[in-house]
This record gives sequence, structure tokens and C-alpha cells, in this order.
Amino acid sequence: MPIATKGAVKTVGTDDLEKLGASIILSNTYHLMLRPGEQVLKAAGGLHGLMNWQKPILTDSGGYQVLSLAPTREVRDDGVLFRSHLDGSEHLLTPERSQEVQEAIGSDLAMILDDLVDYPVTRERVIESVTRTTKWAKRQKNWFSKNASAGRELWGIVQGSTSSEFRRRAVEEIVGIDFDGYAHGGLSVGEERPETYELVSMVNEILPADKIRYFMGAGKPEEIVEYVRRGVDCFDCVLPTRNARHGTLYVWRHDDFSRPDFYEVYHAGNESHRLEFSPVDKTCDCLLCARYTRAYLRHLFSVEEPLALRLSTLHNICFYLRLMERIRGEIETGKL
Amino acid sequence: MPIATKGAVKTVGTDDLEKLGASIILSNTYHLMLRPGEQVLKAAGGLHGLMNWQKPILTDSGGYQVLSLAPTREVRDDGVLFRSHLDGSEHLLTPERSQEVQEAIGSDLAMILDDLVDYPVTRERVIESVTRTTKWAKRQKNWFSKNASAGRELWGIVQGSTSSEFRRRAVEEIVGIDFDGYAHGGLSVGEERPETYELVSMVNEILPADKIRYFMGAGKPEEIVEYVRRGVDCFDCVLPTRNARHGTLYVWRHDDFSRPDFYEVYHAGNESHRLEFSPVDKTCDCLLCARYTRAYLRHLFSVEEPLALRLSTLHNICFYLRLMERIRGEIETGKL
Repeated sequence: MPIATKGAVKTVGTDDLEKLGASIILSNTYHLMLRPGEQVLKAAGGLHGLMNWQKPILTDSGGYQVLSLAPTREVRDDGVLFRSHLDGSEHLLTPERSQEVQEAIGSDLAMILDDLVDYPVTRERVIESVTRTTKWAKRQKNWFSKNASAGRELWGIVQGSTSSEFRRRAVEEIVGIDFDGYAHGGLSVGEERPETYELVSMVNEILPADKIRYFMGAGKPEEIVEYVRRGVDCFDCVLPTRNARHGTLYVWRHDDFSRPDFYEVYHAGNESHRLEFSPVDKTCDCLLCARYTRAYLRHLFSVEEPLALRLSTLHNICFYLRLMERIRGEIETGKL
Repeated sequence: MPIATKGAVKTVGTDDLEKLGASIILSNTYHLMLRPGEQVLKAAGGLHGLMNWQKPILTDSGGYQVLSLAPTREVRDDGVLFRSHLDGSEHLLTPERSQEVQEAIGSDLAMILDDLVDYPVTRERVIESVTRTTKWAKRQKNWFSKNASAGRELWGIVQGSTSSEFRRRAVEEIVGIDFDGYAHGGLSVGEERPETYELVSMVNEILPADKIRYFMGAGKPEEIVEYVRRGVDCFDCVLPTRNARHGTLYVWRHDDFSRPDFYEVYHAGNESHRLEFSPVDKTCDCLLCARYTRAYLRHLFSVEEPLALRLSTLHNICFYLRLMERIRGEIETGKL
């Protein structure tokens, strides 16, 4: 899912996303509740109307941004009291409030507000996080059943830090409430990757087989392949778009995911590309690769032309969309 | 002519320019000689190859940028000695050197390096400027006749500050050398507009009727209409693209150029647009107006999304291209 944090994937429009074949985007409750706010969102016909995007939108709950952006915040049983990073104004983001804003956004897939933990963290804090997340999840399921527009889905999130004991308990509690989809939360935050893989496998084994599984905030291409092997269905990550803006692009080498070298990282601004009049990736069908050369992109980065960021973003989104297509192909043919 | 100073119109690609129907772009010798430099330009097949742009390119000589950007420069009879604004390296931009770089760029239309003056300026400096511009013009015509690739054109520039006496003298000298086109240089730099209009009329009356006339660095829409009335054929200006990036857009009200209110200036970021779910300009066929609303653009500016700059740039380029189309229509029907 390409990330349109504030109602736009940086440098690209929904016209571009349609052309790339994106089938869903992710946006952010915290940012949109502050700007443009619920009034504009409702009047626009939700974020679909505002962005002119007809395909699904998933929204995170705003919990992560409160922790990472708000200059002060206090996690309490009723919600998170925080000050806006924009004007210092005080807001109480309760579970119900997060759902109200997501309803105003009109996201097809809403995430529950959960109680996030840092990594590493004490056992006591993990217990508190799982317990509070379950309580909040129940309140949100309740709010959603009564208030959500038809067709919208609410997805639960499994917390528990790196403890398999508490992740197991979180699954039991969250699945007991019954959501439309389930997410792995609070992973890929500093722990070693083998540990992440094991926790994902363990949780996926006990999640309902007929519900979608979503890994929040992942990841590198080879990690995504590994998570899919272990039963994850969908992903969001700032890596492709953020890396693009730093001139770090992904280039296909082949699509045999059993070999770790199926892609390489391409540094678009490197001096070495100044005389390379070939596409960044000959096998790629994005605008950058179809029309422009490595030498041109290198020039655009060297003179800091904003077009460099746009073309690179289109390319990396294209790479990730094709990655998921290829993974689906492998699953259909039984290879993955 | 949309301005691709460093080899790109800021935020847009040549794919966008093709879709907008642009038939020519302008680029800049000073910037391109520093980055990417002649080696890359030549290897790329010129700027056409580097940008993948098949239609004409006009290049200015670099003289204006040396004056406005170089931290130190000394105008001498052999050329302008300056230090690069990038790394302080010393360069001598001679008339021949300017043409060499423009040949490497492969611009279809090259401008002569001229001796620019500030405004206001002493009579002595005007004399020096006109005299030196004529000397340099001869050297460049000579260089061009021997070295330029087939099909390329070299255009002369008329200097003379706001003195009709010296502009008249400049025309005689420059036309005597015989160029493929002629430009009004050193105008719209601080003098009152009625004075500019009179000087343009006077010069156009004595320029050859069968050669194109170009006003460098103009202007506002109503000024362009006025210059065309007085015999100017083509223009370049940073206004549409620079204004776009500051949220200042042009909106058609009607196309009767005899009335001064044929367009209005639209401030895209204004709070007043937050609930306006209509296009910026209903009569415009650009991507912004065809697909997005005033409310969305206002939101994009308010959260500083780079997409705002791109969509606004596409719109303003579209406005200026349609302006020129409408002016051509008026000329064809004898109204202008």
C-alpha cells in the first residue's frame, strides 16, 4: 500500500497511482484530523472525494503519530492526551474518537487505536499494552457496530512486543472480539529479523485462516517475501517512497525469490551514472524507466530538481507493486 | 516558452510538457555548462537527448545568470570572468564559449551573449553595453557561421536600456550583422510599463518584418497581449512557474483581450477555498482542473505537499499556452 500520509503520496497524484495500477492506498488519521480536519473531509465525501481516488483506502488509527510527533502525550485508560505538533493545541484521542475521524475520512479499512510500546520494553509495560489494547479494541468494535457506514471494515491489531506468550494472549483476546482483518503491530521496531519472522509465524498459525493478515510498517523487499511465506497478505511501508526521495531505487535482477539477490539497490545520484544513457531498470514499465535515462536522473538529483523525487517515487512504487504481483503469481503457481 | 532552467521545468517532465501541448522550451547555458557540463550534454545527444524532448529548445547565453548568480564577475572586452556560484571555480565566458556550450546543448535557437546593464544606468554604460554587444554579436555570428550544426539558429539581442536613441543604434548594428531572429533585451527590469511599450513599438518598427521578435523575460498576461499588439512573437518568463510554486494561479474570466479583466489571480492556499469542491478553472483542461478541486489543492498547500507545486505548475503553464493560442486565434481573425 503506497502511503499518502497527509492525503497525497509525496510528489504524485491519484492519477499517477491509477496509471501505476495501485489498488489501495494508506492514509493517516492523526495528520488528517489536524489538517484538513473532519469538517472538510465530510464535506468532500471523505478522503476518496478529496483525493479523487475510487479504490480502497486503509487508515491507521493515529496512535503511532501521536507517539512519534506530538511534543507531549499521556497514555491513559480513556485514550491518549496529546498536544498537536503544529500549534500545541491539546487533543484527547480516545478509541472512539479515532474511529469517528476514520469514519469522517471514509476509509474502507479502519485500524483500531492500540496502545503501542517501545522496543525494548519491560514485561509490566507489555502486559499493560496488551490489556489496554484489548479494552480499547472492544470499545471500538462496539462503536463501529453502531456507527460505521456500510461496507467499511475494522481491523484488529496484535501487540505483545517480542513476547510470544503475550502475542499469543493478544491474538486470543483480539480474535475473540472478532474483526474483519488482523494486523501484526509493534514489530520491525528494532528487534532482530529472525525473531520477527518467528513471531509472525507463530501469530499467523493461530489467527483465523479466512481473515486477511496485515504487517504494519514493513518492509524491505526480501522481508516482504519472507512475511508472505509465513502467511502475511498485505503491507505498508514508507521505504519505497522515502528512499526514492533520497535517490535510493530498487532494480530487478530476476524474480526468483528463492535467491536473495532478486533485486539490487540503485543509488540514482551517483557520479558513476552521469554517462549511462540507459533506463534505471530495462524491465520496468514506470514513467522513469520508459522515458528517461540514468544520466538524466543523475543530473536531476545533482541539480536538486524536484522532478528527480517524483520520477524516483513513481519507480519505487512501481517496483513494490510489481513485487506484490510477482509474489501473487508465485502463490498461484504454488511456488511460494 | 516554459522555462527548464537546469534541464527540467521544476516539478514536471517532458512527458507532461508534451501532454500540455508545449511546442518549445527554454533552457540556460550558465547552469548547464556547470552541471551536467559539455561532456554529458554531447554524449547525451544534447539537451534534447538528455531530457527526451523532440521539439525546439531555445537557450539564453548565460550572461544574465553570470550577473545575477556568480559571486564575483568582471565584464571585459574578451568576455565575462566569473566564479561559479556552486564551487567558486573561475570561468571565462567569452562570446565564442557561450556559443560552444549552446552547440553542445544542441539548442535549436541560440541567443548571443550580450553585455547587460542594470536599471537605471549611466549614459556612458549604455554606450559601452551597446558597443560591446555589437562587437560580441559579430564574433558570435562569425563563430556560428563556421561551427554551428545545420538547422540551428542564432538570434541577436537589442540592448540600449531605456534610451530610444541607443536602442535605435543597437537595432541598426545588430540587424546589420543579420541574425535569424531578434530579441528585446534589458527591458522589464524596473522601468515603467508605458515606457517599455513605447520602446518595444519603436524597435519593432525598424526590425526586419520577416524575422521573429522575442521579448526576453516577460511577462504578465496583459503585458504579453500588449507586446503582441506591438509586434512581439514570443516570450519566456518565470512568472507562471514561479508563481505556481507560491500558490498564485491564473484563472480565465473570458478571452476578450480588449478588456483588462480577462483573467484573475487565484491564491490557491487561501483558507477561503477549504470547502470549494469545484475546479480552480472550469474552462481549463489541465490535470489540476480536470481531476482535482480547489479544496484539495488548498489542503495540499496547507500541509506543504510537493504535489501542490506540481499541479499548480501544470495549470499555469497550461494557462500561458492557452493564452498564446487565443492570441494567435485573435490575430488570425484580425481582432488583434
